Amino acid sequence: MSRARCVALSGGVGGAKLALGLSKAMTSEELLVIANTGDDFDHLGLRICPDIDTVSYTLGDLANLELGWGRRDETWSFMETLKGLGGEDWFNLGDRDLALHVERTRRLQAGESLSDITADIGERFGITSSIAPMSDDDVRTIVDTSDGPLAFQHYFVRERCEPKVTGFRFAGASDARPSQAFRAAFEATSPGMVVICPSNPFISIDPILALPGVRRMLEASNAPVIAVSPIVGGKAIKGPTAKMMDELGIEPTSSAIAQHYAGLIDGLVLDNADAAEADAVREFVPDVLVTNTVMKSLDDRVSLAREVIAFSQQVSEK
Amino acid sequence: MSRARCVALSGGVGGAKLALGLSKAMTSEELLVIANTGDDFDHLGLRICPDIDTVSYTLGDLANLELGWGRRDETWSFMETLKGLGGEDWFNLGDRDLALHVERTRRLQAGESLSDITADIGERFGITSSIAPMSDDDVRTIVDTSDGPLAFQHYFVRERCEPKVTGFRFAGASDARPSQAFRAAFEATSPGMVVICPSNPFISIDPILALPGVRRMLEASNAPVIAVSPIVGGKAIKGPTAKMMDELGIEPTSSAIAQHYAGLIDGLVLDNADAAEADAVREFVPDVLVTNTVMKSLDDRVSLAREVIAFSQQVSEK
Repeated sequence: MSRARCVALSGGVGGAKLALGLSKAMTSEELLVIANTGDDFDHLGLRICPDIDTVSYTLGDLANLELGWGRRDETWSFMETLKGLGGEDWFNLGDRDLALHVERTRRLQAGESLSDITADIGERFGITSSIAPMSDDDVRTIVDTSDGPLAFQHYFVRERCEPKVTGFRFAGASDARPSQAFRAAFEATSPGMVVICPSNPFISIDPILALPGVRRMLEASNAPVIAVSPIVGGKAIKGPTAKMMDELGIEPTSSAIAQHYAGLIDGLVLDNADAAEADAVREFVPDVLVTNTVMKSLDDRVSLAREVIAFSQQVSEK
Repeated sequence: MSRARCVALSGGVGGAKLALGLSKAMTSEELLVIANTGDDFDHLGLRICPDIDTVSYTLGDLANLELGWGRRDETWSFMETLKGLGGEDWFNLGDRDLALHVERTRRLQAGESLSDITADIGERFGITSSIAPMSDDDVRTIVDTSDGPLAFQHYFVRERCEPKVTGFRFAGASDARPSQAFRAAFEATSPGMVVICPSNPFISIDPILALPGVRRMLEASNAPVIAVSPIVGGKAIKGPTAKMMDELGIEPTSSAIAQHYAGLIDGLVLDNADAAEADAVREFVPDVLVTNTVMKSLDDRVSLAREVIAFSQQVSEK
């Protein structure tokens, strides 16, 4: 990989959208996307890495835009047959998606690292940006709920985010090492910028930040750290972020996101809908950019990415 | 399972055809099919049991009759995608077929026995006959060839049976125990009959006979043991039986099949095409039935099964 000009921390769908924009708004080879692996789990004997896959499918132009998850041109014979066999059917796996899980599991069992497998699959998908897991060590997000602790996918998919959240834990994080690509991007010189994508801060970004040394790595770097708020008008574009904040007694606002990342980020990007919050956000974050953050089209993604890049340069020149 | 009236030893396609005929020519619950597991192998992290599956798909009316293997109504998205990922693509796996391998592998890893899984899958397929693996212990057929020893599926599928065969070994057989259902069928009282299906004697039936105690179990039983010759007019209906016999210096004739099973079987069923061999066969086997053994239609399967049943009664009454 060439030197990363931009390191983007990402969860699944929302993060992947901005990552795609970034890959098109700069020389794509200069983008390194670090994907959360706290959502990874073993299911039906297969290792499934939802965030790595969403980022890879999105950057490889293979994402299923109708479903909002999984691969395009998907078929469902496997799942249909598995149901008939009495197998576990709460986690949907398309036939094409499954090939990735089977091949990755085989390669992991053969001793290859998740980083190497992810890089190789990215290449096969024709992706010129780099995608790396946050760590090659297992970190597993546990959601503490009113129904007791739940493995992330059990909370997220099986229980449809219904149990009331009381907190989060990242099992294994304290012993996990950031992946080689992640560390290398901050060694010797700093990257040009770090972008925290508009992903869920609690379950997509915090697991990355929980890895030993990551906060220090970001703080010690000269790179401006820019986050894009995942909250627009008191709601999350997708997923349970706002519901979780409510349950945790946090107002679902961009100011609360600013407070969450206070001390770590140099700038926060808010949506126009939350322009009135700009002053409140400045209490926690030195710089604020108010713009359209809702990414419906590819143009939206690229244009938000361009604004984030320009904003980071502005922050950096201060 | 109700008491087995008929125990059929079977490999894949040819054996499954007669097993299907038997299941329709008698009260289906009284048939126990013992499937060879010497062909089983681990591929892409999955346990694949080709003969159990061929028998199960055939008896469950789920077999792919166009292909001659695998499941009907099959789709191929998984395999197509796996190829694109650089995965091993020499062994074709349909999307529906895959569900069975994934679910079985998961259940084996969870500690269930192959016997229990096979019985459960048979039930889910609506099969009222019983299907059991020859053993719950791993037995792996090794084909010794001019290119060195090959794991069975490597010889059979990857190398398309091209290397010249010099012999066979059944790794693990001497420590393997016949499955509970197999043993139970011979405990206390004998089954009514034992049928050795028209499968390849070297690679489909010999692994079953190599299990400690199986030959003794058949010999000690009052049940007539009837084999159906897989050779018709010097050729095998399907697969490499005749080619193997040639390479081993054995003439590909039904007399050679009779000699192979001499001492074990009470009767051999030959095809009309080999009527001239009847006397030669009698040198090795007490009783001979000459009839049509080529099973093209379902009627052919049922009518051969009926003749085999009648022949076994005749042999038994002597």
